[in-house]
Amino acid sequence: MISAQSIWKDVVKIREQSPLVHNITNFVVMNNTANALLAIGASPVMAHAEEEAEDMAGIAASLVINIGTLSPPWVRGMKKAMMKAASRGIPLVFDPVGAGATPYRTQTVKELFVAALPLIIRGNASEISALVNAAGNTKGVDSTQSSASAVNAAETLSGLYKAVVSLNGETDYIVKGKEHILIHNGHALMPKVTGLGCTATALTGAFAAVNSDYYAAASHAMAVMGIAGEIAARTAKGPGSFQTDFLDALYNLKESDIAELLHTGEEK
Amino acid sequence: MISAQSIWKDVVKIREQSPLVHNITNFVVMNNTANALLAIGASPVMAHAEEEAEDMAGIAASLVINIGTLSPPWVRGMKKAMMKAASRGIPLVFDPVGAGATPYRTQTVKELFVAALPLIIRGNASEISALVNAAGNTKGVDSTQSSASAVNAAETLSGLYKAVVSLNGETDYIVKGKEHILIHNGHALMPKVTGLGCTATALTGAFAAVNSDYYAAASHAMAVMGIAGEIAARTAKGPGSFQTDFLDALYNLKESDIAELLHTGEEK
Amino acid sequence: MISAQSIWKDVVKIREQSPLVHNITNFVVMNNTANALLAIGASPVMAHAEEEAEDMAGIAASLVINIGTLSPPWVRGMKKAMMKAASRGIPLVFDPVGAGATPYRTQTVKELFVAALPLIIRGNASEISALVNAAGNTKGVDSTQSSASAVNAAETLSGLYKAVVSLNGETDYIVKGKEHILIHNGHALMPKVTGLGCTATALTGAFAAVNSDYYAAASHAMAVMGIAGEIAARTAKGPGSFQTDFLDALYNLKESDIAELLHTGEEK
Repeated sequence: MISAQSIWKDVVKIREQSPLVHNITNFVVMNNTANALLAIGASPVMAHAEEEAEDMAGIAASLVINIGTLSPPWVRGMKKAMMKAASRGIPLVFDPVGAGATPYRTQTVKELFVAALPLIIRGNASEISALVNAAGNTKGVDSTQSSASAVNAAETLSGLYKAVVSLNGETDYIVKGKEHILIHNGHALMPKVTGLGCTATALTGAFAAVNSDYYAAASHAMAVMGIAGEIAARTAKGPGSFQTDFLDALYNLKESDIAELLHTGEEK
Repeated sequence: MISAQSIWKDVVKIREQSPLVHNITNFVVMNNTANALLAIGASPVMAHAEEEAEDMAGIAASLVINIGTLSPPWVRGMKKAMMKAASRGIPLVFDPVGAGATPYRTQTVKELFVAALPLIIRGNASEISALVNAAGNTKGVDSTQSSASAVNAAETLSGLYKAVVSLNGETDYIVKGKEHILIHNGHALMPKVTGLGCTATALTGAFAAVNSDYYAAASHAMAVMGIAGEIAARTAKGPGSFQTDFLDALYNLKESDIAELLHTGEEK
Repeated sequence: MISAQSIWKDVVKIREQSPLVHNITNFVVMNNTANALLAIGASPVMAHAEEEAEDMAGIAASLVINIGTLSPPWVRGMKKAMMKAASRGIPLVFDPVGAGATPYRTQTVKELFVAALPLIIRGNASEISALVNAAGNTKGVDSTQSSASAVNAAETLSGLYKAVVSLNGETDYIVKGKEHILIHNGHALMPKVTGLGCTATALTGAFAAVNSDYYAAASHAMAVMGIAGEIAARTAKGPGSFQTDFLDALYNLKESDIAELLHTGEEK
């Protein structure tokens, strides 16, 4: 079970160790995810070219792959970085942005998973369901569903790839096999800001860099996202000011904030 | 004639329907335009690869093309998406960023317009004039002119391509053939923020997705841009805070704001 | 020696002339650097494709090259723009982001310097040291050093390439041969925001566009960065609000702010 203490322990480690998180992510969110990683205390680096992706993954503490605005040269870089991460045993966090929306995205995920399997997969209900379908498990899952309705898909995915699945929505379900940790934190403004899902993935990379229990690390990251979101919502006047307030909240996060706001649960 | 009621009707439709706006736009503004689309109530998606541009345009409610940081692979994706949009009859909004600045940009616009003609073209005086010149109508228009002085070019362009032309500057002229709607809203800080022109194009895509009268839709979008800009300027201390205040204003926009601030006119 | 008056003279020139600064920079910071250039009064343009990089450099007042998220097609565009800038004699400012982190980055810098030598190089201690090592001067400099400890490397680099070297850190050293100008301005929040180094490079491009004494121009740019940072820190609550406050401070900068806050020194 996660707790304010266990979350805080990781935050302190991130601030002390400042782990290098290598991101190959999409154009829309790069600035946001780099700033969120800096705000929590990590060191972000973005490098996608196949000429250097492997070298950068070779010096990173964790690797974050996000397929948001993918194209063939980027996929080649992702593949090289993923294989390097797997060979080094550093955590590989994967965000299947828009999986299921086009055949190219779904096909690319398949192709990348042949190169290396992620240790943590973070996505919303549609994306997690699409990955299960792409794996041949075509139960016909509705793509506009709530996170609760995709929990079965998350369990299937977790079992297939021996990965922790972080399924996000109004409630976050962090799934490991048949076990779940539920996070009830967050705020209604968060889906009104682009890239907060991608930011969750990046922060998951930072937590996994300092905590080799990836089930806990992924849960800690989602709790911190939700709690920082709730703090930001106290002062935000809309999705614009929410963004700056969110980064301020991440940077100023205290153990007492987590103790006060953490709203979690566990299911088997 | 546009009115606070007609504008508000579209805003409500955008919030209710949350139309999927497919953007192939430039690196500088992607984050801004995605956030502006979310703030007004639409669903943005960015996807440029030729491997998926057609599929994404196939599920979108409108397509926004912006040539800001173009390169050949992106132009190939734009072409495929534009042809798909034309075949489906969904609104295609085109932003010729920097047309006229380099031969490559001007040539690319020509090439793209062979693939599919946009239904709405949004740009500043230099860009609109450059498109007219590129079309062979070389009247020698000065590239540093005010929006008023490019109205003739906008009329010519509108006639040539049977498109609504949204010519932006201190006064916005929305032009359909020889008819004009004038919008006098906006604020002097707006040209001091990068990407607000591109944001206007993206919002035009959202309005066109819910209103098939593109002359009205383009006018509504510019009115909302200008009004949100005026609201943001009440609290902004400079171009930094203006950006967050602008997104907050879009998100919190009320019919009474529009009724109070709309400053428009019509000319034949 | 730089002074509040000499800095202010350049700021006024930038605001009056609004020089066109051509940037080929990385995906993470494009929006930030464009907004900072607008806030100080310059006109930014981003254009990287080899099909137009030369034409854009042909109409620009200065060229800024930043290798942050490089890949072969971008390097080809950089090379063409750099050669054009050199042939026209406009200032070329170079930011070797991450030089030394991967062989590809270091090799690319070498390759680009064959095409054209920059007149100003701006980087942190690791990057400046890596460039010296790449030039064959392998003294084995530690990559986690402070700016003070890389001053020798900056001198070597300045001598090798007859370039002004702007070495940034808690203290900024602007180096020309064996001469140094020191800037002690800035704030601890600045390294917590992504892209402020890249923003310093872009502003250096704006100052070099209006002041052909590049040693002074580079120093003026760093002083303005640090002073705007100190002003922003008065109101910022963290790295999120710091970003908006920083742009507001650049935009609202007054001569009296500079006179009050400038903290500089000179060494031979």
